[in-house]
Amino acid sequence: MGSTFGTIFRIATWGESHGGGIGVVVEGCPPRLPLTEEDLQRDLDRRRPGQSRLTTQRDESDTAEILSGLFEGRTTGTPIAVLVRNADARPAAYEHLKDVYRPSHADYTYDAKYGIRNWQGGGRASARETIGRVAAGAIARRLLHQVAGIEVLAWVSRVHTIAADVDASSVTLEQVEADPTRCPDPDAAAAMTFAIEAARRDGDSLGGIVTCVARNVPPGLGDPVFDRLEADLAKAMLSLPAAKGFDIGSGFDAVAMTGREHNDPFVPGAGGPTTTGNRSGGVQGGISNGADVVCRVAFKPTATISSAQDTVNTSNEPVTLEARGRHDPCVLPRAVPMVEAMALLTLADHWLRQRSVDILAP
Amino acid sequence: MGSTFGTIFRIATWGESHGGGIGVVVEGCPPRLPLTEEDLQRDLDRRRPGQSRLTTQRDESDTAEILSGLFEGRTTGTPIAVLVRNADARPAAYEHLKDVYRPSHADYTYDAKYGIRNWQGGGRASARETIGRVAAGAIARRLLHQVAGIEVLAWVSRVHTIAADVDASSVTLEQVEADPTRCPDPDAAAAMTFAIEAARRDGDSLGGIVTCVARNVPPGLGDPVFDRLEADLAKAMLSLPAAKGFDIGSGFDAVAMTGREHNDPFVPGAGGPTTTGNRSGGVQGGISNGADVVCRVAFKPTATISSAQDTVNTSNEPVTLEARGRHDPCVLPRAVPMVEAMALLTLADHWLRQRSVDILAP
Amino acid sequence: MGSTFGTIFRIATWGESHGGGIGVVVEGCPPRLPLTEEDLQRDLDRRRPGQSRLTTQRDESDTAEILSGLFEGRTTGTPIAVLVRNADARPAAYEHLKDVYRPSHADYTYDAKYGIRNWQGGGRASARETIGRVAAGAIARRLLHQVAGIEVLAWVSRVHTIAADVDASSVTLEQVEADPTRCPDPDAAAAMTFAIEAARRDGDSLGGIVTCVARNVPPGLGDPVFDRLEADLAKAMLSLPAAKGFDIGSGFDAVAMTGREHNDPFVPGAGGPTTTGNRSGGVQGGISNGADVVCRVAFKPTATISSAQDTVNTSNEPVTLEARGRHDPCVLPRAVPMVEAMALLTLADHWLRQRSVDILAP
Amino acid sequence: MGSTFGTIFRIATWGESHGGGIGVVVEGCPPRLPLTEEDLQRDLDRRRPGQSRLTTQRDESDTAEILSGLFEGRTTGTPIAVLVRNADARPAAYEHLKDVYRPSHADYTYDAKYGIRNWQGGGRASARETIGRVAAGAIARRLLHQVAGIEVLAWVSRVHTIAADVDASSVTLEQVEADPTRCPDPDAAAAMTFAIEAARRDGDSLGGIVTCVARNVPPGLGDPVFDRLEADLAKAMLSLPAAKGFDIGSGFDAVAMTGREHNDPFVPGAGGPTTTGNRSGGVQGGISNGADVVCRVAFKPTATISSAQDTVNTSNEPVTLEARGRHDPCVLPRAVPMVEAMALLTLADHWLRQRSVDILAP
Repeated sequence: MGSTFGTIFRIATWGESHGGGIGVVVEGCPPRLPLTEEDLQRDLDRRRPGQSRLTTQRDESDTAEILSGLFEGRTTGTPIAVLVRNADARPAAYEHLKDVYRPSHADYTYDAKYGIRNWQGGGRASARETIGRVAAGAIARRLLHQVAGIEVLAWVSRVHTIAADVDASSVTLEQVEADPTRCPDPDAAAAMTFAIEAARRDGDSLGGIVTCVARNVPPGLGDPVFDRLEADLAKAMLSLPAAKGFDIGSGFDAVAMTGREHNDPFVPGAGGPTTTGNRSGGVQGGISNGADVVCRVAFKPTATISSAQDTVNTSNEPVTLEARGRHDPCVLPRAVPMVEAMALLTLADHWLRQRSVDILAP
Repeated sequence: MGSTFGTIFRIATWGESHGGGIGVVVEGCPPRLPLTEEDLQRDLDRRRPGQSRLTTQRDESDTAEILSGLFEGRTTGTPIAVLVRNADARPAAYEHLKDVYRPSHADYTYDAKYGIRNWQGGGRASARETIGRVAAGAIARRLLHQVAGIEVLAWVSRVHTIAADVDASSVTLEQVEADPTRCPDPDAAAAMTFAIEAARRDGDSLGGIVTCVARNVPPGLGDPVFDRLEADLAKAMLSLPAAKGFDIGSGFDAVAMTGREHNDPFVPGAGGPTTTGNRSGGVQGGISNGADVVCRVAFKPTATISSAQDTVNTSNEPVTLEARGRHDPCVLPRAVPMVEAMALLTLADHWLRQRSVDILAP
Repeated sequence: MGSTFGTIFRIATWGESHGGGIGVVVEGCPPRLPLTEEDLQRDLDRRRPGQSRLTTQRDESDTAEILSGLFEGRTTGTPIAVLVRNADARPAAYEHLKDVYRPSHADYTYDAKYGIRNWQGGGRASARETIGRVAAGAIARRLLHQVAGIEVLAWVSRVHTIAADVDASSVTLEQVEADPTRCPDPDAAAAMTFAIEAARRDGDSLGGIVTCVARNVPPGLGDPVFDRLEADLAKAMLSLPAAKGFDIGSGFDAVAMTGREHNDPFVPGAGGPTTTGNRSGGVQGGISNGADVVCRVAFKPTATISSAQDTVNTSNEPVTLEARGRHDPCVLPRAVPMVEAMALLTLADHWLRQRSVDILAP
Repeated sequence: MGSTFGTIFRIATWGESHGGGIGVVVEGCPPRLPLTEEDLQRDLDRRRPGQSRLTTQRDESDTAEILSGLFEGRTTGTPIAVLVRNADARPAAYEHLKDVYRPSHADYTYDAKYGIRNWQGGGRASARETIGRVAAGAIARRLLHQVAGIEVLAWVSRVHTIAADVDASSVTLEQVEADPTRCPDPDAAAAMTFAIEAARRDGDSLGGIVTCVARNVPPGLGDPVFDRLEADLAKAMLSLPAAKGFDIGSGFDAVAMTGREHNDPFVPGAGGPTTTGNRSGGVQGGISNGADVVCRVAFKPTATISSAQDTVNTSNEPVTLEARGRHDPCVLPRAVPMVEAMALLTLADHWLRQRSVDILAP
């Protein structure tokens, strides 16, 4: 059941790194939304490999074809199917991996679960799988913009030990896209670039943190008690490859604060109560409060490294592995559109869910 | 839709702090499992208020009645309904709060979402809501023990700035329960007790971290790509009141490591490949790998404090609030069984899900 | 998973014939709906046993207690839990059945599925299980009335070979409730009464048909392609005990018509196109068209009869069974509120689902 | 949400009559199942147009491409995406229909629901949509055959007033496929052919009944109380275009029987209790009992006829319509593989669901 996400705005993704392609079916997008393939391509281009020297050199244009659900430039309310063909697949390049379990990859666990494994390029566990999410996220972005002016933006806020200084409330897409690192703090971006290139040369890899903000989120989104907005965001983010942690608002830093320091005082606002701080991260009791929703996602260093590693083969015998596939020494820059997509999908679903709550006059 | 959790082992919770009671309906528990009300009570007693001077003094025995789904001491495969009556409800004690939005509580957001709010004791946003989770978690615990020997244990690993030193692979329930803080490191427990009592005297509150381990988890649990084990755990944990962050294995600390440092080398094990480290936290590619599943949940300091606070009322006018309800100066000790419950529910669901995957011989 | 019904307006039922009681948790009812226990009791009283000499003499008041989800007489948007205690349970009366599989009952199949069976009064397979549905249906009725003026009414249109003559577009609740048979055609009602009493004296039982109409259903409800309105109604009705068939509009009679005879011509109506006939039964392409939704449900004769029958015991040996429990010689009169409940639940869910479709201006 | 079917074996279909194509994503098929595109094509060929002079002459080869989820001829446990391109689309042929609501079609209701409508060939409401179901059904067929020897077969048992005489327990696929009508009673088949051709010449259309049997269904499938096997079958069948009714076993005929006539006596069987009759249709209390599952689906006469009809246009004005598109004068022969597909999908889902029930030893 694991390839479906969302309840009303619901997507089903499919596809492997090598094979017929990658795609997604989006159900529940309201009818009459203007939509084009260009809307999808914009985000897919930010995700695709080969954008810069910081990313894997696999050559894929990742061109999206919308197969259904559109009529004369608008959605029809029926499922929107999107297909991206795989182009630069090189199965032979993975031949040496078919009997080896790469450390901290999904090779062993896929075999443990399914008893069979498409070892070409990581199969379903490849980051190419996120193409479907990003395409669907672009549709969610179009919807949220149209119905509520909601805007979602993510950026690289940390790589290894290099932390960026970014104002979440004012940073822009242009600032994020200005550098291949997708870090909008130029000094940090320069240091990150240096560190990533050093890691590559050293056959090593780096992790980091992506921060994401959603602006103009109306109060009322999120469904206690289990489908709290932060809970669904947490699931969304931890479903991304290489994600190891999530927090919202003050997050793990809340631990070192006292209640008096941490509480966000309410003050009268023009359209209702607002808060003077935002340690809540825009969510209280699982429901958006109208402030910016701000969360962070921790990504581990890429498991694929160009150094010899001890491991075992599929016969449970020790072997030495030397990685040779194309890969990213740091996934963070390409993770940015993925994080945005997951936030967009979560918000679109909750926005539509709230339509069935907000029925009767108070 | 937010009061349902799980897909096969699925629970629906209901109830408010003040009213007819709190309960849960558990669907999908396999038939023929031995089960008694005592199995539930054991965990409910760890969650209930008034256990120690560290927790709220509300007097509730939280006695569970199983209303259905059992026959002659075993489950029948039909829904198991559990009811806990509210006893020590004092709605009058909340009368002064009915027009006030307490800072960093759910008062304002519930009004924003639903246009109506049961202000007595926090209504559905009260931590009493977790009774249903803990009762259901106890059933999941019984199931996982029976079918797979899976064991789930959580403890308080940090309060404010006080971090405990605990070996996740060997710590026992007895060690956790030995102190009212539920911190199995005696020195840290003593310091935590001191800090919590100081915070109470000061009209303030503290947050912290609960660490949770699941042992004997077989390889193969978790459903890529969206229902990865860590994604469902993240959602489970972030659905708890006051939770602000989640990570698994190395978590946020992975960020400062390189791939070479972070990867868990495989070595031949008796029953298949095992790893020499566990920075993966027992999960790779979203699927359990047989190692201990280890995760952390960050809780903010309790929003209820006994100090005057600036806020607004339901007419969006500034008011000063002085809290007077019964509350915990630190939720961490009582959060321990809640965290365990959410881990148990997640694992039970995934264990059952895997039964429909593992069908055909390799 | 089988005890949950609906997607947005979603219910989870629980309970057995003998045991702690019967109940339901209703999720997704919009907040601020005025609701009282009397709203539920009205329909429960039409379902309960002992209403007339035509029904089983088990003595149950079936008094509903609402445990949560209400505040000051209105729904809060949180789950509504309803509890009905079992009163007149007589487990000893079923002792002789514990090792016997009654013909055309669920005894054998429950054992085959679950490997354990609560044989007291039929356990979960008892018609008492429908209490939860009827209580939830009453909430759906209140909602649909409030938001759209939708009205659902069912009646007994046939018992055995006796068919009633009823105008589905004008028949009223008062006419249906005027006779214990719930057949609004007085002549047919008299003949049905005679036939049911004859069957009872003869130790036999009778089946029949319930017809159901939903009026004021707005155009647009139903979600092609799988969740067509008629598909969800069919599932709803076939989930009732003893139901063997469902059809909508012309139904099985459509088979003997040609397309020219069967098509419903459109004519201009005040609020949009209307049809001159209603062989479609108010649904075209899976979506309501504004005409009355009319469907029929076939019920088999009660499996419990007071005659000796050949059967087998749990050891697969031949035995002779003489039924002795309390039962209805004809379930039809009490099936009427059950059919209404299932129609109401289906419509409420689809009405709320349509809120998330009807977003953007045409 | 309406384009998803099933819970564990779950499919999402997409596509319109004219456009990028038609397809389906199948989730939850267990790994390691041998599967080829030929397995799908066999059933698709029975569904496709242009097979015989009895069906529409639209020229489509309906060639299926499996895009994911297979590796070296076996399923991998990941989603299986299937794509069928539209070839013989002639949007211009529908130009005259774009402002007209055809009687008893979905034109008006799609507009009422979505506010926009792909009028080319019926868009999503076209019977071409069932391609995805049939392709997925073929995968379910492969699975059920492999794991349990379950066999599903349907046939045309009635067209208009012509009823066939067929023994459900012994009829074979060869007998069904021997005639273009898919009626295995040669005399009835000849009469049906005559009637269908007469209807076509007369610019009219005919309906009928498809009967479906599932053999070797093990006892225990079906999830009371809502997901009874017959309830899920009813939904499955009523989701098919032009379906107006469903019954199981004795079905609507049960109404004219008494309990004594209707009950199926149990007798000791080799592998457990069996019944001497099968008025239950293989299902008791919502759960399969090991006997053949036998159900019927009523289809209305095709709404498209070649005669002038009164109707309205999208401006709610009266107009006269003369149909000109390619269509079937009787959908029954092509409905046979669709009915089989829906039965297969329902059974596969319930077979997998039962794996999570049948866990603990009795």
